[in-house]
Amino acid sequence: MGLTLTEKILEDHLVDGELEPGEEIGIAVDQTIAHDLTGTMAWLQFEALGLDEVQVEVAGQHCDHQTYQPDYKVSDDHRFLRSAAGTYGAYFARPGTGILHQVHKENFTAPGKTLIGADSHTPTAGGLGCLGIGTGGLDVATAMGGAPFYLDVPEVVNVRLEGELPEWSTAKDVILELLRRFSVKEGVGKVFEYTGPGVETLSAQERTTITNMGTELGATTSIFPSDEQTKEFFERLGRPEDYVELAPDEDAEYDDEIVVDLSEIEPLIACPSMPDEVVPVREVAGIDTDQVLVGSCTNGAYEDILPVAKMLSDREVAKQTEMIIAPGSKQASEMLARNGLTAELMAAGVSISEATCGACIGAGHVPASDSVSVRTFNRNFEGRSGMEDDAVYLCSTEVAAATALTGEITDPRDLDADIDAPGFEYPERYIGASEADIIMPDQSVDDGLVKGPNIDEVPLKDPLGGSLRGSALLKMPDNITTDHIIPATQEVSVYRSNVPKLSEFTLKRVDETFAQRAADADGGFLVAGENYGQGSSREHAALCPMYLGVHGVLAQSFARIHKSNLINFGLLPLTIDEETYDRIEQGDDIELVENAVEAVESGAEELTIRVNGDWEATVGLDANERQRELLAAGGKLPHTRQQFADGVGEEA
Amino acid sequence: MGLTLTEKILEDHLVDGELEPGEEIGIAVDQTIAHDLTGTMAWLQFEALGLDEVQVEVAGQHCDHQTYQPDYKVSDDHRFLRSAAGTYGAYFARPGTGILHQVHKENFTAPGKTLIGADSHTPTAGGLGCLGIGTGGLDVATAMGGAPFYLDVPEVVNVRLEGELPEWSTAKDVILELLRRFSVKEGVGKVFEYTGPGVETLSAQERTTITNMGTELGATTSIFPSDEQTKEFFERLGRPEDYVELAPDEDAEYDDEIVVDLSEIEPLIACPSMPDEVVPVREVAGIDTDQVLVGSCTNGAYEDILPVAKMLSDREVAKQTEMIIAPGSKQASEMLARNGLTAELMAAGVSISEATCGACIGAGHVPASDSVSVRTFNRNFEGRSGMEDDAVYLCSTEVAAATALTGEITDPRDLDADIDAPGFEYPERYIGASEADIIMPDQSVDDGLVKGPNIDEVPLKDPLGGSLRGSALLKMPDNITTDHIIPATQEVSVYRSNVPKLSEFTLKRVDETFAQRAADADGGFLVAGENYGQGSSREHAALCPMYLGVHGVLAQSFARIHKSNLINFGLLPLTIDEETYDRIEQGDDIELVENAVEAVESGAEELTIRVNGDWEATVGLDANERQRELLAAGGKLPHTRQQFADGVGEEA
Repeated sequence: MGLTLTEKILEDHLVDGELEPGEEIGIAVDQTIAHDLTGTMAWLQFEALGLDEVQVEVAGQHCDHQTYQPDYKVSDDHRFLRSAAGTYGAYFARPGTGILHQVHKENFTAPGKTLIGADSHTPTAGGLGCLGIGTGGLDVATAMGGAPFYLDVPEVVNVRLEGELPEWSTAKDVILELLRRFSVKEGVGKVFEYTGPGVETLSAQERTTITNMGTELGATTSIFPSDEQTKEFFERLGRPEDYVELAPDEDAEYDDEIVVDLSEIEPLIACPSMPDEVVPVREVAGIDTDQVLVGSCTNGAYEDILPVAKMLSDREVAKQTEMIIAPGSKQASEMLARNGLTAELMAAGVSISEATCGACIGAGHVPASDSVSVRTFNRNFEGRSGMEDDAVYLCSTEVAAATALTGEITDPRDLDADIDAPGFEYPERYIGASEADIIMPDQSVDDGLVKGPNIDEVPLKDPLGGSLRGSALLKMPDNITTDHIIPATQEVSVYRSNVPKLSEFTLKRVDETFAQRAADADGGFLVAGENYGQGSSREHAALCPMYLGVHGVLAQSFARIHKSNLINFGLLPLTIDEETYDRIEQGDDIELVENAVEAVESGAEELTIRVNGDWEATVGLDANERQRELLAAGGKLPHTRQQFADGVGEEA
Repeated sequence: MGLTLTEKILEDHLVDGELEPGEEIGIAVDQTIAHDLTGTMAWLQFEALGLDEVQVEVAGQHCDHQTYQPDYKVSDDHRFLRSAAGTYGAYFARPGTGILHQVHKENFTAPGKTLIGADSHTPTAGGLGCLGIGTGGLDVATAMGGAPFYLDVPEVVNVRLEGELPEWSTAKDVILELLRRFSVKEGVGKVFEYTGPGVETLSAQERTTITNMGTELGATTSIFPSDEQTKEFFERLGRPEDYVELAPDEDAEYDDEIVVDLSEIEPLIACPSMPDEVVPVREVAGIDTDQVLVGSCTNGAYEDILPVAKMLSDREVAKQTEMIIAPGSKQASEMLARNGLTAELMAAGVSISEATCGACIGAGHVPASDSVSVRTFNRNFEGRSGMEDDAVYLCSTEVAAATALTGEITDPRDLDADIDAPGFEYPERYIGASEADIIMPDQSVDDGLVKGPNIDEVPLKDPLGGSLRGSALLKMPDNITTDHIIPATQEVSVYRSNVPKLSEFTLKRVDETFAQRAADADGGFLVAGENYGQGSSREHAALCPMYLGVHGVLAQSFARIHKSNLINFGLLPLTIDEETYDRIEQGDDIELVENAVEAVESGAEELTIRVNGDWEATVGLDANERQRELLAAGGKLPHTRQQFADGVGEEA
């Protein structure tokens, strides 16, 4: 039986377990990345592991989420990250260099490699045939230490592309089409592997837009073959040596197949407030638009912004609309400037920002009350923009430009102005690596770790005890995101390296009183519906509930990364059925009937809870032996530390 | 007797009083400007005055302090400002267009005009022979309504320039030289009028750097003649029709004279944490520098950044140093981009920001703990950067570039690299007005005023009562700045349109408990040393203490704008001598012996306070008849409203 490309890369990196459906495997990690919101904790954890240097081929530390540096605590974090990268042998990309996925793509991503990133959009790399998986910072810390990365063998879905995109339709519309057909839960436990004759019609750059936003399907990752398009991209990047040809076997067997005829795709848009609320642009055309934002790790490449420049050249953004472009990397910025496009965009009324994640995480250009924002980003979860009750639409850069010109949501095919479809176009010449801005390990400028006063100790959980009891501290609906649990807005993010303070913001968007109630309670449980913890990979969404004394989460289902984060921090991810969900009320007393540590270690997949001493229900614990060890130990960090203390060392 | 240029412009605009030393006069206002932190309150006050449209030739509303829009409240403010400008007939410069002084200079400033701005650096316009005076937003509101602007006839100081600047010395060093010689209080009640043979050696653009930072001398304003250099600048700007020749009479008599030999000026730098802590750069050379920032209304012009581009071309910023350039206007940005300089700067490792005040007011790029920041800005008051215990140095863009190259404070004359002195150079061609970004009154896009939920009512004070008593709520040292009273940092600034909330931050940097204590107390007084209220013009520094029930301030002396703001908001500015200052303790009970309203209305210049019912002291009330009317009425807004109610109308 032939292998899929995903299976080939997994097999090539397999160090633990068997490559069989449903099995957990450990894979060797070639590369890691983290950003300024996830990196501080990852490096503090790496420090706690007691190693001298990173053990992977490439470890990268970026500063992209907090480039405005609105607080000395952020600047202190950036300085700490630079010192940690230099001390332990990672490269460091200075604030302003750009968004980690874009910068890593330009400089380090390579086909056939495994990349573990402390950011949920790490699958961007899949557009270049690299297996990129997003996870929590703790997994990145242990991976940097040389430990395998553990995951369940995913289902591999064949996304067969046929035909060719028509004018005005883009790679963004391809992934929006999948989100139109499926929900944000469709991809849980799956890899979307792109095949078929349509693949070769897409440049490598376009492919990364698709794999990037595959995250919004809930997928473990997405991947394209590495072919002539990939080769061209690496040649243009000035890294031809990093290219290798990669493809699935011709007789590869997939778990499922989706067929997409590219020629039938039209300009699409995701409506508020989920990325899967996708409709044709024409269905919502005419809605007055206050703000148009272009950029992000999805559409921040030079090739994404070039069409906007073409469309706006010698024209003007509507007076009632503010348009901001934040390129995905300084390389993209520099090429736009060098080719005269920056000046043209400015003359058209566009404000050009430094390269940043910025507005995508609510750290700037927060929409006004009752306003409409059209963005080329990947997420529009309610409140993520920094504004509750926001109205954020997601689309291609072409639709964004058309909307900016008219001041209302516009399908570019319906523009009055006679504008040619810009199509996809590479720059004449790529500017090479960001030499001035990336500090390579051998260029380290700090003398050891530099910690500001806001950088606190890593909190540790005690090992799991025998009895587990507490109240249902909060009952939540379906699709609670990590943005609900710990928002990425500025006032919150400055405490990413200070868990006691950060914990005060836990689930505040759901219930203002939660954090204080949890801290006052003697342990307790969270209760949620389907798909709990979707969205960003941020581990603080598990770490903070842990710090507040939460024992575990009772949910109908969990998002993959977040479930893994819960286990890593020693919180029980317990599944409940709909009936149990309906029956439990907030404030109910919940007790685990079994001895907790014995039940977890025994491998039991079903446990029993007693509610209010009155009725009982079965809860599921879907965790393998390794994960149960972590849960019993109080989480991965105490577990790994203990292994080092026991002399198991770097094989931990 | 001949007239100074200052006297000529004042006489030309005189509508009330006599142009005699020490007298208060009212002058007609030709132009007004406000920014996003001062404008919301100004427009709410304008609305309260009940007029249909602005009565001045040009009224401008800019959005420059909060361009990152970190909160929906900021975006709501921007939308409100756009709607107010459109409703009442002002132009509106969108966020991203640039800093008000730079944008106004490029588009509207004209010689011989009077310009009243709700920002302390309004004297920038003086470089073009325009009399620009900074004040509170309330004065701007009434000026927009057609009311005269009142000021005491200033002393006019002749700053006689001789010689010519040597290589590597710049206009910034001229004003730093004055700050080296004199203190931040030197200019109180004075206009610095530049004359002498050195004047013609300075371009109009360079002159605006000098007049801009004349504010740091405490001056009412600074002014240059309008001559061939000015003419050239207006021709380059594409506004030759706005040029008129202006000069003092040959036999003009000045109140004082300062002689500056330009040929003796060397690169200077202001050390932490006052703009007058100036030394030659060589005295502090070698200090490790973490951050270099270029921009601001002092040094944000194209001509300011061009030398940096020349010096960094084909070179690299030191790896340990972050360098950010925020141009002063999008016009400057666009010219830099168009001339290929943006790309060169990026390649050198510089992060290019949108045009913004940004870091200058602590709204971004806040320094890390124990770090050194070298900036081309105009102020380095402790904490203004957003970081307490900061170490901020102020210098020319050339010194900043040299420092970025070496990573330590560096006199560019001592660079190892063989770099030619860039000198001053105009762009080949100015790009004209920012047509795409400025919404002129006839282009209004909003249908009436648009107020978000954070935009609250204008608070009003009751008329002054008979007895005035309360405790000394806070005793402060010399040189308390408006940044101490109400900081301009982001977490504070978002409440500029919401006085009840904003008041909670009043004097928090001096005493965390003050605001709550003041709110709990039944009125009270502030006690301060010399030069109370220096710095920014923000009227919230008077408005918030008023809202908290403060009756007045007992200080050894007051900064001009802040004293005027205190009176405008109905707070008594009472001067005390050093002995009284030393004797009063925080918490003392203070009672005005006289009937307050009678004493104020009687014109008494000396009043008596009784402290703890125990001892008495004389306090001064330096206020003219008009100001006493305001104080008795509870401030300018209730006074002006009452005048309208009484049918006095727009002549108020």
